[in-house]
Amino acid sequence: MSDIIIDFNRRQRCGVEEAIFCESKSIEQIEQIIHIGLSQEVRFLFTRLSPQQFSDLKPELSAQLDYCSLSNTAALGQIDDLNEQDTKVAIVSGGSSDARVCREILRTLNYHGFNASLHEDVGVSALWRLTDALDEINKANVVIAVAGMEAALPTVLCGMTDRPVIAVPTSVGYGVSKGGQLALNACLGSCAAGLMTVNIDNGFGAACAAIKLLNSFTH
Amino acid sequence: MSDIIIDFNRRQRCGVEEAIFCESKSIEQIEQIIHIGLSQEVRFLFTRLSPQQFSDLKPELSAQLDYCSLSNTAALGQIDDLNEQDTKVAIVSGGSSDARVCREILRTLNYHGFNASLHEDVGVSALWRLTDALDEINKANVVIAVAGMEAALPTVLCGMTDRPVIAVPTSVGYGVSKGGQLALNACLGSCAAGLMTVNIDNGFGAACAAIKLLNSFTH
Amino acid sequence: MSDIIIDFNRRQRCGVEEAIFCESKSIEQIEQIIHIGLSQEVRFLFTRLSPQQFSDLKPELSAQLDYCSLSNTAALGQIDDLNEQDTKVAIVSGGSSDARVCREILRTLNYHGFNASLHEDVGVSALWRLTDALDEINKANVVIAVAGMEAALPTVLCGMTDRPVIAVPTSVGYGVSKGGQLALNACLGSCAAGLMTVNIDNGFGAACAAIKLLNSFTH
Amino acid sequence: MSDIIIDFNRRQRCGVEEAIFCESKSIEQIEQIIHIGLSQEVRFLFTRLSPQQFSDLKPELSAQLDYCSLSNTAALGQIDDLNEQDTKVAIVSGGSSDARVCREILRTLNYHGFNASLHEDVGVSALWRLTDALDEINKANVVIAVAGMEAALPTVLCGMTDRPVIAVPTSVGYGVSKGGQLALNACLGSCAAGLMTVNIDNGFGAACAAIKLLNSFTH
Amino acid sequence: MSDIIIDFNRRQRCGVEEAIFCESKSIEQIEQIIHIGLSQEVRFLFTRLSPQQFSDLKPELSAQLDYCSLSNTAALGQIDDLNEQDTKVAIVSGGSSDARVCREILRTLNYHGFNASLHEDVGVSALWRLTDALDEINKANVVIAVAGMEAALPTVLCGMTDRPVIAVPTSVGYGVSKGGQLALNACLGSCAAGLMTVNIDNGFGAACAAIKLLNSFTH
Amino acid sequence: MSDIIIDFNRRQRCGVEEAIFCESKSIEQIEQIIHIGLSQEVRFLFTRLSPQQFSDLKPELSAQLDYCSLSNTAALGQIDDLNEQDTKVAIVSGGSSDARVCREILRTLNYHGFNASLHEDVGVSALWRLTDALDEINKANVVIAVAGMEAALPTVLCGMTDRPVIAVPTSVGYGVSKGGQLALNACLGSCAAGLMTVNIDNGFGAACAAIKLLNSFTH
Amino acid sequence: MSDIIIDFNRRQRCGVEEAIFCESKSIEQIEQIIHIGLSQEVRFLFTRLSPQQFSDLKPELSAQLDYCSLSNTAALGQIDDLNEQDTKVAIVSGGSSDARVCREILRTLNYHGFNASLHEDVGVSALWRLTDALDEINKANVVIAVAGMEAALPTVLCGMTDRPVIAVPTSVGYGVSKGGQLALNACLGSCAAGLMTVNIDNGFGAACAAIKLLNSFTH
Amino acid sequence: MSDIIIDFNRRQRCGVEEAIFCESKSIEQIEQIIHIGLSQEVRFLFTRLSPQQFSDLKPELSAQLDYCSLSNTAALGQIDDLNEQDTKVAIVSGGSSDARVCREILRTLNYHGFNASLHEDVGVSALWRLTDALDEINKANVVIAVAGMEAALPTVLCGMTDRPVIAVPTSVGYGVSKGGQLALNACLGSCAAGLMTVNIDNGFGAACAAIKLLNSFTH
Repeated sequence: MSDIIIDFNRRQRCGVEEAIFCESKSIEQIEQIIHIGLSQEVRFLFTRLSPQQFSDLKPELSAQLDYCSLSNTAALGQIDDLNEQDTKVAIVSGGSSDARVCREILRTLNYHGFNASLHEDVGVSALWRLTDALDEINKANVVIAVAGMEAALPTVLCGMTDRPVIAVPTSVGYGVSKGGQLALNACLGSCAAGLMTVNIDNGFGAACAAIKLLNSFTH
Repeated sequence: MSDIIIDFNRRQRCGVEEAIFCESKSIEQIEQIIHIGLSQEVRFLFTRLSPQQFSDLKPELSAQLDYCSLSNTAALGQIDDLNEQDTKVAIVSGGSSDARVCREILRTLNYHGFNASLHEDVGVSALWRLTDALDEINKANVVIAVAGMEAALPTVLCGMTDRPVIAVPTSVGYGVSKGGQLALNACLGSCAAGLMTVNIDNGFGAACAAIKLLNSFTH
Repeated sequence: MSDIIIDFNRRQRCGVEEAIFCESKSIEQIEQIIHIGLSQEVRFLFTRLSPQQFSDLKPELSAQLDYCSLSNTAALGQIDDLNEQDTKVAIVSGGSSDARVCREILRTLNYHGFNASLHEDVGVSALWRLTDALDEINKANVVIAVAGMEAALPTVLCGMTDRPVIAVPTSVGYGVSKGGQLALNACLGSCAAGLMTVNIDNGFGAACAAIKLLNSFTH
Repeated sequence: MSDIIIDFNRRQRCGVEEAIFCESKSIEQIEQIIHIGLSQEVRFLFTRLSPQQFSDLKPELSAQLDYCSLSNTAALGQIDDLNEQDTKVAIVSGGSSDARVCREILRTLNYHGFNASLHEDVGVSALWRLTDALDEINKANVVIAVAGMEAALPTVLCGMTDRPVIAVPTSVGYGVSKGGQLALNACLGSCAAGLMTVNIDNGFGAACAAIKLLNSFTH
Repeated sequence: MSDIIIDFNRRQRCGVEEAIFCESKSIEQIEQIIHIGLSQEVRFLFTRLSPQQFSDLKPELSAQLDYCSLSNTAALGQIDDLNEQDTKVAIVSGGSSDARVCREILRTLNYHGFNASLHEDVGVSALWRLTDALDEINKANVVIAVAGMEAALPTVLCGMTDRPVIAVPTSVGYGVSKGGQLALNACLGSCAAGLMTVNIDNGFGAACAAIKLLNSFTH
Repeated sequence: MSDIIIDFNRRQRCGVEEAIFCESKSIEQIEQIIHIGLSQEVRFLFTRLSPQQFSDLKPELSAQLDYCSLSNTAALGQIDDLNEQDTKVAIVSGGSSDARVCREILRTLNYHGFNASLHEDVGVSALWRLTDALDEINKANVVIAVAGMEAALPTVLCGMTDRPVIAVPTSVGYGVSKGGQLALNACLGSCAAGLMTVNIDNGFGAACAAIKLLNSFTH
Repeated sequence: MSDIIIDFNRRQRCGVEEAIFCESKSIEQIEQIIHIGLSQEVRFLFTRLSPQQFSDLKPELSAQLDYCSLSNTAALGQIDDLNEQDTKVAIVSGGSSDARVCREILRTLNYHGFNASLHEDVGVSALWRLTDALDEINKANVVIAVAGMEAALPTVLCGMTDRPVIAVPTSVGYGVSKGGQLALNACLGSCAAGLMTVNIDNGFGAACAAIKLLNSFTH
Repeated sequence: MSDIIIDFNRRQRCGVEEAIFCESKSIEQIEQIIHIGLSQEVRFLFTRLSPQQFSDLKPELSAQLDYCSLSNTAALGQIDDLNEQDTKVAIVSGGSSDARVCREILRTLNYHGFNASLHEDVGVSALWRLTDALDEINKANVVIAVAGMEAALPTVLCGMTDRPVIAVPTSVGYGVSKGGQLALNACLGSCAAGLMTVNIDNGFGAACAAIKLLNSFTH
C-alpha cells in the first residue's frame, strides 16, 4: 500500500480544493482515498474515474459517490450550496461531441458552489448558432469556450466579446487532430488577443481557473 | 555542371507549366536555365527566387526577368493575355502579413492567363471584414483562402459559401505556429466539410489547382 | 442530455449537408439525432459509425439506417436520385487496403446524387495498372486519388493528367507511416503542381470538395 | 502594395485594441500603417518590431514611435493615463533572461492604462526568492508568471496563492527546451489546478488577458 | 524457439545483474528463461511482466516467482540479504499515481541487497509536504525523484539539497503529457544544475544507477 | 467487394514477388486473395497476418496456409527449394525480443529459395557475445542486423565488418523508444559509414533487399 | 587542442576509409587533421566542408586539398585509379536541386576507385524522363536513387527494376518537407519491397554502402 | 534594467554554485552581473557566452574574465585549487567534434576544484580505441560519456564498466540527429542498465552532477 498525503487546507491556500485524478490510480488506491474521506469526514472530487473503475470499486464504497458517467467525475460528501440564478460563468461548445468536457466543467463549478449557463453545439461551421447565443454569453463574467478539431470557435468568440475567454481544446477529431494537439495549438496560436488556454480535455482546470478569477474579484 | 531536362509538354499533359523552384538551386543552375529559355525561346516561371539570388545573377540575365520581390517570383518570356474582367478566382487572406503568398497566387494565375479578385486582411478576429466581402467572393468559381496563425479563416469562410475553397496555410506566427504547421493542420482538420489544402506558403500550388479546376470545366 | 442544434439549411448555404460525425459521440447522442431525423422528417448521413456503435443502438432505430460496415457510414432517410451513367468523378486507389475510404467517398457522393467510376488497387509499385486505367480516369471532371504508405500515387497521377486531383491520404502502413502522417505529407509536399489534399482517411471531405466543385461549375 | 483594413472599434468590442504584429511584415507595410495612424489620428501598438526593422524605417516615421528594444514594442500616439499606485497585476519571472517578455507585458498594460508590480528572477532553483516576494504578489488581482526552461515557477506559484495565475512560457533554454515548447507544455500539463496559459513568449497576449479580466469585473 | 544467450558475469563486469525485460517477449520465451534459471541455478529479475503475462505462465513456473503486480516485477531465486537500517537511497515521489515506479525502484534495490527510505505523494502543488520530508531525504547518499505531469518536483528538490538527484519521469498525465515525454523533458531541461535523468517510467534503470554509484564509492 | 489486381510478373520485373500486407485488410479481402491463389494456381506470401485474423479465416482456407504465429507470416503454395548449406545471408539480432522480426526475415528468404545463418541475442550490452559470433557472420555476403531500443548493434557491427549491413530497427522498447522511432533514427544517424536501413520491424523489406542484392551479382 | 585518434586500418577492416566529417569541427581541428595527413603521408576524404570553412583554412593547407564547392567535399592525397568504363553503380536523381548530393556520391565513389553513371533530373512528375533512362540504369549492379520533396522516385524506380536500390532522401523542399524528413519517411515507408535508405543528404553513406556491396561480391 | 537576484549560498545548499547562463541574456545584463561580481567580490562561472557576446562586452569588463572560446565559458574571480593528480572523474568522448562539450565539463570541474582524465575520439566505429582506454577510465569514480550522432558510445561503455556513467548527448550530426535529439534518446533508451543522462550539450550539468556525487560520498 502506498502512502497518500491529503492537502486538507488547499482551498484556503489556493481557492480550490484538491481533486483526485484517477486515471493512473489502482482500484486499491481509490478505495483507500474513499476510506480517508469517510473516516475523516472530508469531501473529495474525483476526476477521470472511468465507468470501468467505478464498477470495480467495492459496492459499499461506490454507493457513497455521486457519479456521472458522461464526465467521469464523482463527488464524495456534501457539495456547496448552489445559486441557480448565478450566471457568472458561460460554457460554450463547438459540437455535441464536446459534451463530456462541458459536463466536467459544470460539475466542478457546482461542487465549489458556482453555477453556469450552457451553450452547446454552436460551432463556427454554422456561425448563426453562435451569434444567436452571443447576448446570453455576454452576461457572464468569464466565458469558457470548448472546442475540438480545428478549434476556431474560441478565436471567433474572443473576437466578438469583451469578456475574458478561457479555451478548453478537446480531443475530438482524427488524423491531424492528434488527440487534441491541433485544437490546443489553435487556441494558443490564435490571432485573437487575450485568449487563455488549458490542457486538452481539461475541463476541471478551466473550472478551477474560473473559480480563482471569481474569487479574486469578490474576496 | 549538372544535367537539366526540361519537361516541355507539361502544359499540354497537365494543364499547367513546369515552374523552376529556386530555393535549393545554385546561381549557376538558375543561370543555366535562363540560358535554355533564351536560346530555345521557351518561357519559364521561377518561384522562391530570393532577392539575394536575383541580385547574384549576371545582370544581362536578370534583366530578362520580370521579378517581384514581394512574392519572390520571376517570369521569363511572354505571359498569357489577361482578361481584366475575369473573376473566376477570388483570393482571400487573413492579414496583411499574408501578402507574399497572395501575390504568388496572383502572379501564377496571371502567367497562365487568369485574373482574380483580391480580398486581403479580412481575418476572423474582426468578422465584419469578411462578411462585408462575402458577396464579391461568391462571384468567383473557386476561392483560395490564405491564412496563418490558427488559420480559422478558411474554416469560417467554407461554412459561409457554396464555392469550393482551397486553403493555403502560411508560416505567419510564432511559438506553436511552428513555421505554419498549426495553420496547415487547422485547414486539414477543419470541421467545415470540403476544404482542400496545399502545403505551407504554397501559393504556386494553389494557383495551379485553381487553373486545373477551371480548365477541367471549360475544356 | 446535451443540446444538439441541427444546421438545417447547410446544403443551401454550403452545397453539402451536415453529416453526423459519430466517433466521439455516445450511443445516447446518436439515438437522440436519429429521433430528430425521424420526428422532423429530415435525412442525415452518419460517418465513422463503428460496427460496435451500430450494434449498440436500439434495434428499432438501427433498423432505420442504411448501414455499410466497410465504410462505417449510414444514411437515414431518402438519398438523392442517382444517374448511373454519371462519371464526373473518378476514384483511384493505391491498394485494396484503401477500400474503406473509397467506399466512404462513393457513399457520400451517392447520398448527394452523384455517381463515380472506381479504379482500385492501381498503386505505383506496378505502374502498368495505373497507365491501363488512365483513359477511363481522364473522362472525369474531378479525380480523387486515395493512397497510404508513401502515397506516391497522387503525385504520379497528377503528373499524368490535366484533371484536377484531390488526394486522400490513408492510415494504411506502419512504422514511419505514423497513422497516415507520411501519406498526408507526401501529398502536401508533392513535386506535382496543383495537388489538393484533405485530412487522413477523410473520404467524406474529399467527396464534399468534389460536390462543391461540380456545383460551382453547373450552378 | 497590399490592402490593410484597420479594425478601429476593437477596443469597444473586445476590450483591447488591435496590435500590429510586425514579425512577418515588410518595411513598406509597417510604414504604410504608421501613415494610416498619423493621417487618421489613431494610435497603434507595434509588437515584435525588431531593432533591424526599426532602424530600416524612414527616420521621419521611426521618430514618431516610442520604441523599446528590450521588448521589441513601439507605441504610436497617446498612451493611456497611468495610475502609478495601481497594483492589480503582478508580473513574476523565473530569471533575468525572461526580461524581454516581462517588458512586453508591462508595456502592453501601460499602453492600455494599467500598471503592474514586477518581481523578476525569483525562479524555483532558489525558492527563498519566491517566498520572499509572495506577500507582495498576493496583493494583485491577477498574477502573470513568466518562465522558460522547465517552467516549474508557474506551477509552484499557483500552488501557493489563491490569485488567478496566467503563465507565459518563454523560449529561454536549449536542447529539449525546443524553443519554449517544454516550458509551454509544463504550464499546460501542470499539476496545479487552474493555471491558464498563452503562447510561447506571448507577453502581449497575457497582458490582454489580464486587461479583459480586470475590465470584466469593473465594467 | 529463438536463441537466448545469458550474460552470466554481468554483475561482476557492470555491478548490476542482467534483468529480463518482458514487455516484448512471448510466453514461450519467458518460460524458456525460467527453465534456464531453474536448471542452471541462477537467479533472474523480471521487469515489465504484466499480470496477464504472469497468469499465462504455466502454474508450476509462475509458482517459482516472487511476483509484485503493482510494479510488474518478479524475482526468481535467492535475493540478496537486506540491511533494514540501510538508508543510503531515498525515493521521493510527486503523487500516489507514481507508486508503480517507486515500487520497481525499491524491488530492484532490494534484489541487489540495498534498502531505501520512501517518501511518496510530496508533490510541489503543496510544498509543505516536501519541506516536511527534507531532513529525512538528506540522510541518504543518493536521492531518486519520481514525478509525472509537469515534473517540477525533481527541479525543486534538486535546488534544496546537496545530495545527487536521479530523476525518473513517469507517464502519469494526459494531453500535453504525451505518455511522460513532458515529464522527461522537464527533468532534462531543468534549471537546477546537476539533475540526472533516466527513461520514462524506468525505475529499474534508476535503481541500477544508484547501485553503481554506491558500489563505486565503497568498492 | 473491392477490386484486387494481382501483379503476377513482379518477380520477373523486380526480382521479388508481391506480398500480401494483411494489417489493414478485412477477412473478406484476405479470403478473396486466397481464392485467387487457389483458383489461378499462383503462390502468395502473406505478411502481418495476425493470429486473430488467421483464426477468423474460414477453416478450409486457413488450412491451405503454412502459418507462423511468431512472425505473423503465411505461405500459400509451393515455396522455392532451399539449399540448407547456403549462408549468403547472416541475420544478427540484439535480443530475444527481436525474434519476431528475425523469423519474418528468414521466412521471406526461404520463400524465395535462400537460406541464412541466425545469430540472435548478441546485443552490445555484453559485447563478448557479438565478437564470439563475428567470424561466422563474416562468412555471409550480406548481413542483416536487427535491433530495438537504442539500436547500437548495427553501428558497432558495421564498424567491425567489411560485409554490407542492412539494419532493421525494431519496436522493442518504451518511453523514448516511441515504437521503434529511436532505433530507426539510430541506424540512419549512425557514425558507421555505409549502413543501410529499412522501416521499423520491416523484416520482409530487409529480406527483399538482400534477395535483390544477391540476384544482382549472380544474374 | 583536443585529441584526435585516426583509425588507420578502417579500409582493411570495413572496406571503406574513415572520412572527416567537418560540420561540427573548428578550423583548428581541421587544420590539425590536414597536418596529420601531410606528415604521416595518409590520405583523407573531408565531407561537409563548407566554402566558408575552406576559405578560413590557412592557404598553404587548403592548397593541398582537391575541393569541390558543389558537394562540399575535399580530398587530401592520392585518389584511387579510376576505370572510366566502370558502370557498376548508377546514380539517379529527381531534380537538379539534388545535384549537391549526387556529386558527393560520385566523389566518394571516385575516391575509392569506383566510377558511376549519372542520370539527373528524371523525377516522377514527368515519368517519360525516367523510362527513357531505364535501360542504362539497369546496366548497373547497384542503383542509388536521390530525391527530395515527396521522394516518389525511389519507390517508382524500385518497382521497375530488379537492381538493388539505395535511396538517398534530400532536404529539398519546404513546409511539410521539414528538412528532408518527409523524403526520408517516404523512402522508408515505401510500398516497393526491398528499398534501402540512408540519412537525409547522406550521399557519402550511400556511396560507402555501394562500395561495401561491390566489395562483398568481388572479394 | 531588469532585476537580478544572486543566490549567494547555493554552493552551501546544493554543493555547486550558480552559473550565469548567457545564451538569452543581453550584453547589458551580462555586464551588470560582472559589475555585481567585481563590486561584491563574488566569483561567477559564465556558460554559453558566445565569442560574439564576449567581444561585445566593454573591454575593461571582458579583461576580468578567463574566457575559453572552445567551450564558450568564462570564469570571473578565483577558481578553486586543483589537485592535478586527482582522477576521480573520467571524461570520454566519441569524436573530436565533441571537444566543445568536453571542455565545458572540464572547465566546470576545475572551477569547483576537481580535475579529470580526458579520453577523446574513442567512438564505437573503431572499438579498439575504447578498449585501449578502458583501464584508465576504470580508475575514476564517475565516468562522463560524451557522444553525438547515434550515441552508441555511452551504451557500449556502460556495458563494459562497473563505474557509474553519466551520458552527455551532443548536437553533432545532421538529418535524423535533429540537433542532438537522437543522441539524447539513444542514451535514455539504452539497453545498458543504469545509464544517467543530461540535456543535449549540457556539459555544465554533467559536471555538476559529478560534483554532487563526489561530495555526497566524501562529505
